[in-house]
Amino acid sequence: MKSSDSPFPCSVAFAIDTGVIPEATAHYQKRLSDLRGLFLDPEALERRIREEDDPVCYENYAISHSQAEGDLFFGTTIIYPGKVGSEYHLTRGHYHRKRNHAETYQALSGHGLVLFERDDGTTCTAELAPGKVTYVAPFWAHRSVNTSDVPLVVLWTCSIEAGHDYEGLGGQGMRQVVVERNGMPSVEDRPLRPA
Amino acid sequence: MKSSDSPFPCSVAFAIDTGVIPEATAHYQKRLSDLRGLFLDPEALERRIREEDDPVCYENYAISHSQAEGDLFFGTTIIYPGKVGSEYHLTRGHYHRKRNHAETYQALSGHGLVLFERDDGTTCTAELAPGKVTYVAPFWAHRSVNTSDVPLVVLWTCSIEAGHDYEGLGGQGMRQVVVERNGMPSVEDRPLRPA
Repeated sequence: MKSSDSPFPCSVAFAIDTGVIPEATAHYQKRLSDLRGLFLDPEALERRIREEDDPVCYENYAISHSQAEGDLFFGTTIIYPGKVGSEYHLTRGHYHRKRNHAETYQALSGHGLVLFERDDGTTCTAELAPGKVTYVAPFWAHRSVNTSDVPLVVLWTCSIEAGHDYEGLGGQGMRQVVVERNGMPSVEDRPLRPA
Repeated sequence: MKSSDSPFPCSVAFAIDTGVIPEATAHYQKRLSDLRGLFLDPEALERRIREEDDPVCYENYAISHSQAEGDLFFGTTIIYPGKVGSEYHLTRGHYHRKRNHAETYQALSGHGLVLFERDDGTTCTAELAPGKVTYVAPFWAHRSVNTSDVPLVVLWTCSIEAGHDYEGLGGQGMRQVVVERNGMPSVEDRPLRPA
Protein backbone atom coordinates (compact mmCIF):
# COMPACT_ATOMS: atom_id res chain seq x y z
CA MET A 1 0.00 0.00 0.00
CA LYS A 2 1.21 3.49 -0.84
CA SER A 3 0.75 6.40 1.55
CA SER A 4 -1.77 8.08 -0.76
CA ASP A 5 -3.86 4.87 -0.88
CA SER A 6 -4.09 4.53 2.90
CA PRO A 7 -7.53 4.46 4.49
CA PHE A 8 -8.61 7.52 6.47
CA PRO A 9 -8.63 7.56 10.27
CA CYS A 10 -12.03 7.61 11.95
CA SER A 11 -13.86 7.11 15.24
CA VAL A 12 -16.28 4.22 15.43
CA ALA A 13 -19.04 3.98 18.03
CA PHE A 14 -19.79 0.76 19.90
CA ALA A 15 -22.43 0.01 22.55
CA ILE A 16 -20.82 -1.06 25.83
CA ASP A 17 -23.80 -3.11 27.02
CA THR A 18 -24.82 -4.79 23.74
CA GLY A 19 -21.61 -4.69 21.70
CA VAL A 20 -23.46 -3.41 18.63
CA ILE A 21 -21.28 -1.49 16.14
CA PRO A 22 -23.70 0.26 13.79
CA GLU A 23 -20.94 1.00 11.24
CA ALA A 24 -19.55 -2.55 11.18
CA THR A 25 -18.29 -3.79 7.81
CA ALA A 26 -18.98 -7.42 8.75
CA HIS A 27 -21.38 -9.16 11.13
CA TYR A 28 -22.28 -12.76 11.83
CA GLN A 29 -24.24 -14.80 14.36
CA LYS A 30 -23.61 -18.34 15.52
CA ARG A 31 -26.62 -20.28 16.73
CA LEU A 32 -26.37 -23.42 18.84
CA SER A 33 -26.97 -25.52 15.70
CA ASP A 34 -23.82 -23.97 14.17
CA LEU A 35 -21.80 -25.29 17.12
CA ARG A 36 -22.69 -28.99 16.92
CA GLY A 37 -19.73 -31.15 17.91
CA LEU A 38 -18.20 -28.57 20.25
CA PHE A 39 -20.10 -29.13 23.48
CA LEU A 40 -19.63 -31.98 25.95
CA ASP A 41 -23.29 -32.96 25.97
CA PRO A 42 -24.80 -33.38 22.48
CA GLU A 43 -28.18 -34.39 23.88
CA ALA A 44 -28.46 -31.25 25.96
CA LEU A 45 -27.50 -29.26 22.88
CA GLU A 46 -30.20 -30.82 20.69
CA ARG A 47 -32.77 -30.31 23.42
CA ARG A 48 -31.99 -26.60 23.62
CA ILE A 49 -32.01 -26.23 19.82
CA ARG A 50 -35.44 -27.88 19.73
CA GLU A 51 -37.03 -26.26 22.78
CA GLU A 52 -35.62 -22.76 22.40
CA ASP A 53 -35.86 -22.44 18.61
CA ASP A 54 -32.09 -22.60 18.09
CA PRO A 55 -30.94 -19.52 20.04
CA VAL A 56 -27.97 -17.35 19.11
CA CYS A 57 -24.93 -18.33 21.20
CA TYR A 58 -22.62 -15.53 20.06
CA GLU A 59 -22.25 -12.85 17.44
CA ASN A 60 -19.49 -10.75 16.02
CA TYR A 61 -19.15 -7.24 14.57
CA ALA A 62 -15.97 -6.23 12.76
CA ILE A 63 -14.57 -3.16 11.05
CA SER A 64 -11.77 -3.44 8.54
CA HIS A 65 -10.40 -0.67 6.40
CA SER A 66 -7.88 -2.49 4.21
CA GLN A 67 -6.38 -5.94 3.81
CA ALA A 68 -2.86 -4.54 3.71
CA GLU A 69 0.06 -5.91 5.71
CA GLY A 70 0.52 -3.86 8.88
CA ASP A 71 -3.11 -2.81 9.19
CA LEU A 72 -5.26 -3.68 12.22
CA PHE A 73 -8.93 -4.43 12.41
CA PHE A 74 -11.19 -4.41 15.42
CA GLY A 75 -14.67 -5.31 16.54
CA THR A 76 -16.82 -6.86 19.21
CA THR A 77 -17.84 -10.38 20.14
CA ILE A 78 -20.96 -10.86 22.23
CA ILE A 79 -21.46 -14.23 23.95
CA TYR A 80 -24.96 -14.60 25.37
CA PRO A 81 -25.31 -16.14 28.82
CA GLY A 82 -26.35 -19.77 29.08
CA LYS A 83 -25.18 -23.34 29.43
CA VAL A 84 -25.42 -26.53 27.39
CA GLY A 85 -25.76 -29.09 30.16
CA SER A 86 -23.21 -27.86 32.67
CA GLU A 87 -20.96 -26.21 30.06
CA TYR A 88 -21.02 -22.44 29.60
CA HIS A 89 -21.63 -20.80 26.22
CA LEU A 90 -18.43 -20.48 24.22
CA THR A 91 -16.97 -19.40 20.89
CA ARG A 92 -15.65 -21.95 18.42
CA GLY A 93 -12.02 -21.14 19.18
CA HIS A 94 -9.15 -20.93 16.71
CA TYR A 95 -5.47 -20.50 16.09
CA HIS A 96 -4.40 -17.58 13.95
CA ARG A 97 -3.50 -18.77 10.46
CA LYS A 98 -0.32 -16.72 10.85
CA ARG A 99 0.51 -18.23 14.21
CA ASN A 100 2.93 -15.47 15.25
CA HIS A 101 0.17 -12.83 15.39
CA ALA A 102 -1.20 -11.59 18.72
CA GLU A 103 -4.54 -10.01 19.61
CA THR A 104 -5.96 -7.96 22.49
CA TYR A 105 -9.35 -8.37 24.16
CA GLN A 106 -11.10 -6.00 26.46
CA ALA A 107 -14.30 -7.06 28.24
CA LEU A 108 -16.77 -4.16 28.24
CA SER A 109 -19.51 -5.93 30.21
CA GLY A 110 -20.05 -9.38 31.68
CA HIS A 111 -17.33 -11.72 32.89
CA GLY A 112 -15.67 -14.76 31.48
CA LEU A 113 -12.56 -16.71 30.67
CA VAL A 114 -10.38 -17.35 27.68
CA LEU A 115 -9.17 -20.94 27.29
CA PHE A 116 -5.73 -21.03 25.66
CA GLU A 117 -3.67 -23.90 24.31
CA ARG A 118 -0.48 -24.28 22.33
CA ASP A 119 0.45 -27.00 19.86
CA ASP A 120 2.91 -28.46 22.41
CA GLY A 121 -0.10 -29.26 24.63
CA THR A 122 0.38 -26.44 27.15
CA THR A 123 -2.89 -24.92 28.37
CA CYS A 124 -3.76 -21.84 30.43
CA THR A 125 -6.63 -19.45 31.04
CA ALA A 126 -7.02 -15.69 31.47
CA GLU A 127 -9.85 -13.60 32.82
CA LEU A 128 -12.21 -11.45 30.77
CA ALA A 129 -13.46 -8.65 33.00
CA PRO A 130 -14.12 -4.92 32.68
CA GLY A 131 -11.00 -2.95 33.61
CA LYS A 132 -8.63 -5.55 32.17
CA VAL A 133 -6.92 -6.09 28.85
CA THR A 134 -6.61 -9.77 27.99
CA TYR A 135 -3.48 -10.43 25.95
CA VAL A 136 -3.88 -13.18 23.37
CA ALA A 137 -0.21 -14.04 22.93
CA PRO A 138 1.22 -15.31 19.62
CA PHE A 139 0.94 -19.07 18.94
CA TRP A 140 -1.91 -19.71 21.38
CA ALA A 141 -5.31 -20.99 20.23
CA HIS A 142 -8.08 -19.17 22.06
CA ARG A 143 -11.74 -19.73 22.92
CA SER A 144 -13.87 -17.31 24.97
CA VAL A 145 -16.42 -18.50 27.52
CA ASN A 146 -19.18 -16.48 29.22
CA THR A 147 -19.36 -17.50 32.89
CA SER A 148 -21.67 -14.62 33.86
CA ASP A 149 -25.43 -14.27 33.63
CA VAL A 150 -25.36 -11.25 31.30
CA PRO A 151 -23.99 -10.87 27.76
CA LEU A 152 -20.19 -10.95 27.70
CA VAL A 153 -19.17 -8.09 25.41
CA VAL A 154 -15.54 -8.12 24.28
CA LEU A 155 -13.81 -5.46 22.20
CA TRP A 156 -10.89 -6.93 20.23
CA THR A 157 -8.04 -5.58 18.13
CA CYS A 158 -6.10 -7.84 15.79
CA SER A 159 -3.71 -7.69 12.87
CA ILE A 160 -5.67 -7.90 9.60
CA GLU A 161 -3.20 -10.56 8.42
CA ALA A 162 -3.63 -12.88 11.42
CA GLY A 163 -6.42 -14.92 9.85
CA HIS A 164 -8.29 -17.86 11.37
CA ASP A 165 -7.36 -21.52 11.46
CA TYR A 166 -10.33 -23.47 12.81
CA GLU A 167 -8.90 -26.83 11.72
CA GLY A 168 -5.73 -26.74 13.83
CA LEU A 169 -7.68 -27.62 16.96
CA GLY A 170 -9.31 -30.69 15.45
CA GLY A 171 -12.67 -32.13 16.49
CA GLN A 172 -14.17 -30.65 19.62
CA GLY A 173 -11.77 -27.77 19.90
CA MET A 174 -9.90 -27.08 23.10
CA ARG A 175 -8.36 -29.59 25.50
CA GLN A 176 -10.13 -27.97 28.45
CA VAL A 177 -13.74 -27.12 29.20
CA VAL A 178 -15.46 -24.65 31.53
CA VAL A 179 -18.35 -26.19 33.42
CA GLU A 180 -20.49 -25.18 36.36
CA ARG A 181 -19.76 -27.05 39.61
CA ASN A 182 -21.75 -26.07 42.70
CA GLY A 183 -22.73 -22.81 41.04
CA MET A 184 -19.15 -21.82 40.20
CA PRO A 185 -17.14 -22.04 36.97
CA SER A 186 -14.57 -24.83 36.94
CA VAL A 187 -11.85 -25.34 34.31
CA GLU A 188 -11.37 -29.07 33.70
CA ASP A 189 -9.65 -31.34 31.22
CA ARG A 190 -12.02 -32.62 28.59
CA PRO A 191 -13.13 -36.17 29.46
CA LEU A 192 -11.98 -38.87 27.05
CA ARG A 193 -14.72 -39.94 24.67
CA PRO A 194 -16.04 -43.45 24.99
CA ALA A 195 -14.31 -45.77 22.49
CA MET B 1 9.95 -16.86 17.48
CA LYS B 2 9.11 -20.54 17.93
CA SER B 3 5.79 -21.64 19.41
CA SER B 4 7.49 -22.93 22.57
CA ASP B 5 9.20 -19.55 23.11
CA SER B 6 5.97 -17.57 22.88
CA PRO B 7 4.98 -15.40 25.85
CA PHE B 8 2.06 -16.56 27.97
CA PRO B 9 -1.39 -14.96 27.71
CA CYS B 10 -2.51 -12.84 30.67
CA SER B 11 -5.03 -10.29 31.88
CA VAL B 12 -3.69 -6.88 32.81
CA ALA B 13 -5.60 -4.42 35.00
CA PHE B 14 -5.86 -0.73 34.16
CA ALA B 15 -7.60 2.09 36.01
CA ILE B 16 -10.31 3.69 33.86
CA ASP B 17 -10.16 7.08 35.58
CA THR B 18 -6.38 7.46 36.02
CA GLY B 19 -4.99 5.16 33.33
CA VAL B 20 -2.52 3.61 35.77
CA ILE B 21 -1.36 0.09 34.82
CA PRO B 22 0.33 -1.32 37.92
CA GLU B 23 1.99 -4.16 35.95
CA ALA B 24 3.34 -1.91 33.18
CA THR B 25 6.73 -2.88 31.76
CA ALA B 26 7.48 0.72 30.76
CA HIS B 27 6.36 4.13 32.01
CA TYR B 28 7.34 7.70 31.21
CA GLN B 29 6.16 11.22 31.94
CA LYS B 30 6.49 14.31 29.76
CA ARG B 31 6.60 17.63 31.57
CA LEU B 32 5.96 20.94 29.84
CA SER B 33 9.72 21.54 29.73
CA ASP B 34 10.09 18.35 27.67
CA LEU B 35 7.74 19.82 25.06
CA ARG B 36 9.55 23.08 24.30
CA GLY B 37 9.21 23.99 20.63
CA LEU B 38 5.83 22.28 20.18
CA PHE B 39 3.39 24.92 21.42
CA LEU B 40 2.28 28.07 19.58
CA ASP B 41 3.10 30.39 22.47
CA PRO B 42 6.62 29.85 23.92
CA GLU B 43 6.21 32.66 26.44
CA ALA B 44 3.04 31.16 27.88
CA LEU B 45 4.88 27.84 28.08
CA GLU B 46 7.85 29.28 30.01
CA ARG B 47 5.47 31.10 32.36
CA ARG B 48 3.67 27.87 33.22
CA ILE B 49 6.92 25.96 33.65
CA ARG B 50 8.11 28.67 36.07
CA GLU B 51 4.90 29.33 37.98
CA GLU B 52 3.60 25.75 38.21
CA ASP B 53 6.89 23.99 38.84
CA ASP B 54 6.98 22.34 35.41
CA PRO B 55 3.82 20.23 35.53
CA VAL B 56 3.38 16.85 33.86
CA CYS B 57 1.54 17.28 30.53
CA TYR B 58 1.12 13.59 29.74
CA GLU B 59 2.31 10.17 30.74
CA ASN B 60 2.38 6.72 29.25
CA TYR B 61 2.19 3.14 30.56
CA ALA B 62 3.01 0.24 28.26
CA ILE B 63 3.12 -3.53 28.44
CA SER B 64 5.13 -5.55 25.98
CA HIS B 65 5.77 -9.26 26.09
CA SER B 66 8.18 -9.79 23.20
CA GLN B 67 9.77 -7.80 20.40
CA ALA B 68 8.87 -10.45 17.84
CA GLU B 69 7.27 -9.71 14.48
CA GLY B 70 3.49 -10.18 14.68
CA ASP B 71 3.23 -9.39 18.39
CA LEU B 72 1.12 -6.50 19.74
CA PHE B 73 1.72 -4.28 22.71
CA PHE B 74 -0.72 -2.08 24.54
CA GLY B 75 -0.92 0.58 27.19
CA THR B 76 -2.43 3.85 28.26
CA THR B 77 -1.67 7.50 27.60
CA ILE B 78 -2.97 10.08 30.06
CA ILE B 79 -3.06 13.72 28.94
CA TYR B 80 -3.77 16.06 31.84
CA PRO B 81 -6.20 18.93 31.26
CA GLY B 82 -4.78 22.38 30.64
CA LYS B 83 -3.76 24.91 28.02
CA VAL B 84 -0.58 26.70 27.04
CA GLY B 85 -1.97 30.09 26.05
CA SER B 86 -5.06 29.11 24.07
CA GLU B 87 -3.66 25.73 22.95
CA TYR B 88 -4.81 22.54 24.64
CA HIS B 89 -2.38 20.02 26.14
CA LEU B 90 -1.08 17.59 23.54
CA THR B 91 1.28 14.69 22.92
CA ARG B 92 4.41 15.15 20.82
CA GLY B 93 2.95 13.29 17.84
CA HIS B 94 4.72 10.89 15.54
CA TYR B 95 4.67 8.74 12.44
CA HIS B 96 5.24 5.04 12.89
CA ARG B 97 8.77 4.13 11.83
CA LYS B 98 7.18 1.33 9.81
CA ARG B 99 4.68 3.63 8.17
CA ASN B 100 2.30 0.86 7.09
CA HIS B 101 1.41 -0.05 10.69
CA ALA B 102 -1.94 0.94 12.21
CA GLU B 103 -2.98 1.45 15.84
CA THR B 104 -6.25 1.63 17.77
CA TYR B 105 -7.18 4.07 20.52
CA GLN B 106 -10.03 3.89 22.95
CA ALA B 107 -10.78 6.81 25.24
CA LEU B 108 -11.70 5.53 28.70
CA SER B 109 -12.40 8.92 30.29
CA GLY B 110 -12.21 12.54 29.18
CA HIS B 111 -12.68 13.81 25.65
CA GLY B 112 -10.33 14.98 22.96
CA LEU B 113 -9.19 14.89 19.38
CA VAL B 114 -6.49 13.21 17.36
CA LEU B 115 -4.81 15.41 14.77
CA PHE B 116 -3.71 13.37 11.74
CA GLU B 117 -1.56 14.23 8.77
CA ARG B 118 -0.01 12.36 5.88
CA ASP B 119 3.22 13.12 4.06
CA ASP B 120 1.24 14.35 1.03
CA GLY B 121 -0.06 17.19 3.24
CA THR B 122 -3.55 15.81 3.81
CA THR B 123 -4.89 16.47 7.33
CA CYS B 124 -7.90 15.23 9.26
CA THR B 125 -9.10 14.76 12.84
CA ALA B 126 -11.00 12.10 14.75
CA GLU B 127 -12.74 12.18 18.09
CA LEU B 128 -11.51 10.56 21.31
CA ALA B 129 -14.53 9.79 23.46
CA PRO B 130 -15.71 6.93 25.67
CA GLY B 131 -17.75 4.44 23.63
CA LYS B 132 -15.66 4.93 20.50
CA VAL B 133 -12.65 3.23 18.96
CA THR B 134 -10.40 5.69 17.17
CA TYR B 135 -8.66 4.05 14.22
CA VAL B 136 -5.12 5.32 13.60
CA ALA B 137 -4.83 4.30 9.95
CA PRO B 138 -1.49 3.31 8.36
CA PHE B 139 0.72 6.15 7.06
CA TRP B 140 -0.87 8.90 9.19
CA ALA B 141 1.12 10.85 11.78
CA HIS B 142 -0.97 11.31 14.93
CA ARG B 143 -1.06 13.66 17.93
CA SER B 144 -3.64 13.47 20.72
CA VAL B 145 -5.13 16.57 22.33
CA ASN B 146 -7.17 16.83 25.55
CA THR B 147 -10.01 19.29 25.00
CA SER B 148 -11.80 18.35 28.25
CA ASP B 149 -11.28 19.53 31.81
CA VAL B 150 -10.45 16.08 33.21
CA PRO B 151 -7.59 13.70 32.39
CA LEU B 152 -7.98 12.17 28.93
CA VAL B 153 -7.21 8.47 29.40
CA VAL B 154 -6.63 6.50 26.20
CA LEU B 155 -6.07 2.75 25.93
CA TRP B 156 -4.04 1.88 22.84
CA THR B 157 -3.07 -1.28 20.98
CA CYS B 158 -0.25 -1.27 18.45
CA SER B 159 2.04 -3.63 16.58
CA ILE B 160 5.29 -4.06 18.50
CA GLU B 161 7.16 -3.46 15.23
CA ALA B 162 5.49 -0.13 14.39
CA GLY B 163 8.10 2.00 16.14
CA HIS B 164 8.17 5.79 16.49
CA ASP B 165 9.48 8.36 14.05
CA TYR B 166 9.46 11.74 15.80
CA GLU B 167 11.65 13.38 13.16
CA GLY B 168 9.33 12.88 10.17
CA LEU B 169 7.11 15.73 11.34
CA GLY B 170 9.96 18.23 11.61
CA GLY B 171 10.04 21.22 13.97
CA GLN B 172 6.77 21.97 15.73
CA GLY B 173 5.02 18.81 14.76
CA MET B 174 1.64 18.86 13.10
CA ARG B 175 0.32 21.26 10.47
CA GLN B 176 -2.81 21.97 12.53
CA VAL B 177 -3.40 23.11 16.11
CA VAL B 178 -6.31 22.82 18.54
CA VAL B 179 -7.03 26.08 20.35
CA GLU B 180 -9.84 27.40 22.49
CA ARG B 181 -12.09 29.99 20.79
CA ASN B 182 -15.04 31.34 22.79
CA GLY B 183 -14.77 28.44 25.19
CA MET B 184 -14.86 25.79 22.43
CA PRO B 185 -12.10 23.75 20.77
CA SER B 186 -11.23 24.91 17.27
CA VAL B 187 -8.96 23.07 14.78
CA GLU B 188 -6.93 25.60 12.81
CA ASP B 189 -3.98 25.65 10.46
CA ARG B 190 -0.76 26.52 12.25
CA PRO B 191 0.06 30.19 11.66
CA LEU B 192 3.24 30.86 9.66
CA ARG B 193 6.15 31.81 11.86
CA PRO B 194 7.50 35.31 11.53
CA ALA B 195 10.50 35.33 9.16
